[in-house]
Amino acid sequence: MAFERVGVEEVWRGRIATVRVERWRQEDGEEVEREVVGHPGAVAVVAHDGEQLYLVRQPREPVGDPALLELPAGKLDRQGEDPLATAKRELAEEIGKGAGSWRHLTTFWASPGFSDEAIHVYLATDLYDEHAEADENERIVIETVPLSKLDELIRHCKDSKSLVGLLWLKAMGESA
Amino acid sequence: MAFERVGVEEVWRGRIATVRVERWRQEDGEEVEREVVGHPGAVAVVAHDGEQLYLVRQPREPVGDPALLELPAGKLDRQGEDPLATAKRELAEEIGKGAGSWRHLTTFWASPGFSDEAIHVYLATDLYDEHAEADENERIVIETVPLSKLDELIRHCKDSKSLVGLLWLKAMGESA
Repeated sequence: MAFERVGVEEVWRGRIATVRVERWRQEDGEEVEREVVGHPGAVAVVAHDGEQLYLVRQPREPVGDPALLELPAGKLDRQGEDPLATAKRELAEEIGKGAGSWRHLTTFWASPGFSDEAIHVYLATDLYDEHAEADENERIVIETVPLSKLDELIRHCKDSKSLVGLLWLKAMGESA
Repeated sequence: MAFERVGVEEVWRGRIATVRVERWRQEDGEEVEREVVGHPGAVAVVAHDGEQLYLVRQPREPVGDPALLELPAGKLDRQGEDPLATAKRELAEEIGKGAGSWRHLTTFWASPGFSDEAIHVYLATDLYDEHAEADENERIVIETVPLSKLDELIRHCKDSKSLVGLLWLKAMGESA
């Protein structure tokens, strides 16, 4: 008797997310029904040049915030693109930087009780200028914060990927 | 010209989540359409007795994990219940403990690009036995981890609320 999905029905499909009603068989044989929000996954990047951290502000309509301060980030929205490639593309699109050093810090589920969204968090250092054009008008404003103000930044940030990335830097340093 | 929601249509309603298509007016007057997953919000609790942290394992069908290790947590699923009351109830239901000291550490958006789910994270200390019956069979197994193994636990945890709570404890200590 294995833990496995034994049935699935897509009940809604949007531009980014989907909703599925799934049937799962538990390891003891019992079957349960779960509503699951499907999401392609995302990346977030802790990027600094040894003195400044690079953040972005943008409107986040789902939470009613016209200018939420977050790590540079983006969805895995291109077929077959691996998370590190997405992270490199987003860093160039959002803050106009490339990085000589990339390190994967952690990957986590945003909300495993009802969604399959995974967020991959990277550290990017040895930054250099490298601009890339974004697909759409993302209304992004770049903001730099001194590394010496990391504690205040952590207390100011309000989303999972930024908190995990910045707390990881503060708690665990630059290693995975 | 304000940042405001100027239209909303519910396109799916499940037992926990909903999906809305919303129209927002940006601060420069442009209007955009957003797909938003609505969620009641949740709490998570970093609970320790000075020696052991209390975690729970449970099946998380949305991410295909039969035994994900997480902080005790739960949804704000009772009308009008405040987050601290939810946290106290969940701690008693999930690990059979009350706490003499409660502290709010942070509140964050799980995924502000497409969902309105907020997660409130508390620190609970001065633990004592206090059992409460859960509403449903939650298939929860309690697991304790020594505080001295906090780093290994952080590297093992794979969900936003557990990482934020445990990283906060390691990085910021027991203050908000």
